[in-house]
Amino acid sequence: MSQKKFIAENKDRFISELADLLRIPSISTLAENKTDMSRTAEFIKDRLHEAGISDVTIYETPGHPIVYAEWLKAPDKPTVLVYGHYDVQPVDPVELWSTPPFEPVIKDGKIFARGATDDKGQMYMHIKSVETWLKTTGTLPVNIKFLIEGEEEIGSPNLEPFINAHKDLLKCDSVLISDTSLFAPGVPTLTYGLRGLCYMEVEVTGPNRDLHSGTYGGAVPNPVNILAQMIAKLHDKKGRVTIPGFYDDVVKLTKKERENFAKLPFSEKKYAAAIGVKQLQGEEGFSTFERTWARPTLDCNGIYGGFTGQGAKTIIPSKATAKISMRLVANQSPKKTGKLFEKYIREIAPKSVSIKVTDLHGGDAALTPLDNKASIAASKAMERAFGKKTVYMREGGSIPIVAAFQRILKAPTVLMGMGLNTENLHSPNEHFNLNHFLLGIESSAYFFDEFSK
Amino acid sequence: MSQKKFIAENKDRFISELADLLRIPSISTLAENKTDMSRTAEFIKDRLHEAGISDVTIYETPGHPIVYAEWLKAPDKPTVLVYGHYDVQPVDPVELWSTPPFEPVIKDGKIFARGATDDKGQMYMHIKSVETWLKTTGTLPVNIKFLIEGEEEIGSPNLEPFINAHKDLLKCDSVLISDTSLFAPGVPTLTYGLRGLCYMEVEVTGPNRDLHSGTYGGAVPNPVNILAQMIAKLHDKKGRVTIPGFYDDVVKLTKKERENFAKLPFSEKKYAAAIGVKQLQGEEGFSTFERTWARPTLDCNGIYGGFTGQGAKTIIPSKATAKISMRLVANQSPKKTGKLFEKYIREIAPKSVSIKVTDLHGGDAALTPLDNKASIAASKAMERAFGKKTVYMREGGSIPIVAAFQRILKAPTVLMGMGLNTENLHSPNEHFNLNHFLLGIESSAYFFDEFSK
Repeated sequence: MSQKKFIAENKDRFISELADLLRIPSISTLAENKTDMSRTAEFIKDRLHEAGISDVTIYETPGHPIVYAEWLKAPDKPTVLVYGHYDVQPVDPVELWSTPPFEPVIKDGKIFARGATDDKGQMYMHIKSVETWLKTTGTLPVNIKFLIEGEEEIGSPNLEPFINAHKDLLKCDSVLISDTSLFAPGVPTLTYGLRGLCYMEVEVTGPNRDLHSGTYGGAVPNPVNILAQMIAKLHDKKGRVTIPGFYDDVVKLTKKERENFAKLPFSEKKYAAAIGVKQLQGEEGFSTFERTWARPTLDCNGIYGGFTGQGAKTIIPSKATAKISMRLVANQSPKKTGKLFEKYIREIAPKSVSIKVTDLHGGDAALTPLDNKASIAASKAMERAFGKKTVYMREGGSIPIVAAFQRILKAPTVLMGMGLNTENLHSPNEHFNLNHFLLGIESSAYFFDEFSK
Repeated sequence: MSQKKFIAENKDRFISELADLLRIPSISTLAENKTDMSRTAEFIKDRLHEAGISDVTIYETPGHPIVYAEWLKAPDKPTVLVYGHYDVQPVDPVELWSTPPFEPVIKDGKIFARGATDDKGQMYMHIKSVETWLKTTGTLPVNIKFLIEGEEEIGSPNLEPFINAHKDLLKCDSVLISDTSLFAPGVPTLTYGLRGLCYMEVEVTGPNRDLHSGTYGGAVPNPVNILAQMIAKLHDKKGRVTIPGFYDDVVKLTKKERENFAKLPFSEKKYAAAIGVKQLQGEEGFSTFERTWARPTLDCNGIYGGFTGQGAKTIIPSKATAKISMRLVANQSPKKTGKLFEKYIREIAPKSVSIKVTDLHGGDAALTPLDNKASIAASKAMERAFGKKTVYMREGGSIPIVAAFQRILKAPTVLMGMGLNTENLHSPNEHFNLNHFLLGIESSAYFFDEFSK
């Protein structure tokens, strides 16, 4: 029986199993759901067994358990590590949900429940894809490992230590993750790049206390004015970041990538209207997709200093502070960028003030080249499932664990997301398009096939 | 008997009367002291009577009463209006007072009590000066009016309406105020200029909500970065304010004034060390006294926008706000300056953001030219009392009521302050140097004489 047919014949059961998974309130951040986390891990273990994988282990961690499974009966074939997470976000404000968050409801071809798209539904596709292979052919064309964690929504504190401690166990040729979005409904999409982050704080101190602006105004360094002048110097007129060396390690966009992005449907007017700005703004010579997906940036995330209440208070503030973060692209190093930033900040600061620079946190960017074997396989697999050309995109945000896989396991990552940005992830009425759920199972199955070739 | 001798012979009584005045807790901002305010007004009325002025009226206001008195028996002679205030600041934190704030104590030639220097002690000098004239000569060389209010510490809400409603009653040739400081102990000082104020708020709005800096960073206008760029444009490299027309109405420093300021003892090193800055900073080509007393300035008093908590939050903020105030000098108009500011702010704002500019409040600067008859008389009077050359200074702050006198009564103001910046005004352990109290009485007496010539 073809895999397509098997999926079609079993789809009601697949959806019903997903609904059972969604019924468990596995909110990782709440202490009261602690036992639900173990229940969910056990549930997944049972489904993996039913799918035909006998080697399943639940690893306890200082936090929530990690489910690990493996099927390694394809010697001489590559190994795919499937990563996903079974924990979900809290449900507040619960009064905004149309139906209870842990009582899944199907409406208009979508399943509504917390965790439907992020990430239970997407993670579960791969278990069903493995089942599809084993039940139709009795085998798999590649070796498979599953790594399903329960702490993604709280920053995966125990995952990287686990990976570091189990490098051999997790050894693989490609990491497959479905935890991102399609470019648009029904459009097969390969996300092959994520940005990194370097998040700094700059504190400028002028006088040792707030001064009366009448008595002192005009003669003393004002840390707010000075911080503003320094921030202004961080970009040139073309919207480029002026920190010396900032762009040195940037992997340039290829001609092919730029062509791919240019082909994607996009209305600048609608994009601007949706966020309420009159005009977009960014680095000269790059499109909006290029600016947000493939170019590094520098943005103030917050600023404060002096009097911030209502009305007027006539002081020269003692201090002013800015949170300034840089989105990075491959191969920029967060640590190195932080150092370049600090060096430049100290260089442009007038001698009249003291400067404190703190590196608050960072994360590596990730990029799987389009001509990588895994990327090509994923692209072909989705084309077979959707019957349409795969589009290529990157994402502007960071998924820190992807960089960790890249760094520790040295394996390229395939982001084969089947969600949609409109599916209310982290919000009330989260849902998942069931058509994409089934196409995701099919894409996953074809990926194993394509990657084995 | 000479006035000097009369003051010397009566000094214990003068000080004892001042102590009685200081015993009344006339805190204008506290409802519980409401009756103390009337008691203080009555006390002053009685002392004016005793000094020899029979025409004393207490005017009720929506707030605290105003004491008005007049002695107009010198036809063909100029009229001096003495202004002062009998209300005081609250006493918190009361535990930091060495002795109770309303139980005056004399120690090392200083009287310690709330209101000692600000302004009961300084105001009372003029009542004693009038008494000195009347008891030694039976007359006064000028006509005298007293205007003593009880709401200075809460912004004088009822004084300007009172002045407007009583222009004829208050008509005068000079206003005499002792509510400022000597340049240094024992140094006779004429303060002849005050700065004005124009206090604005600028709000920059980019996106209609905080955006994820990963998803949007690089493509949308960031209001914090943009506000910083705008603030940076408000000064040029020479520390001058760049707002077109900003300096147009500025009354320039005269050669004489600059010489006077240059003669005043000043250590830039000590000044910088006292406020903990490594280096002073201001408009090129001007000294610290010139910058703080006689040049207009622009300073951010506060700034806020985006994430201001601890740690990191990766957003592009929706809004950023700055409080920006300009200290003005004669003849800059706060209203006009506010308009110039707004025009320029709108001019330098990129089209991608929305701008809201609010004029929060303003106040006129004040300047009594040194060659004015009243200034010359005050300078000579203090020289006679102190036996030293009078020094000339301005103040960087504003005393809004001085500008009101200038504007409504068209009378030059003499600021013959006898306080010291170190006398803890508005703080615990406020005190007043009794030597300056007595020299102030003498200076006031000589001023009437000099001004009558």
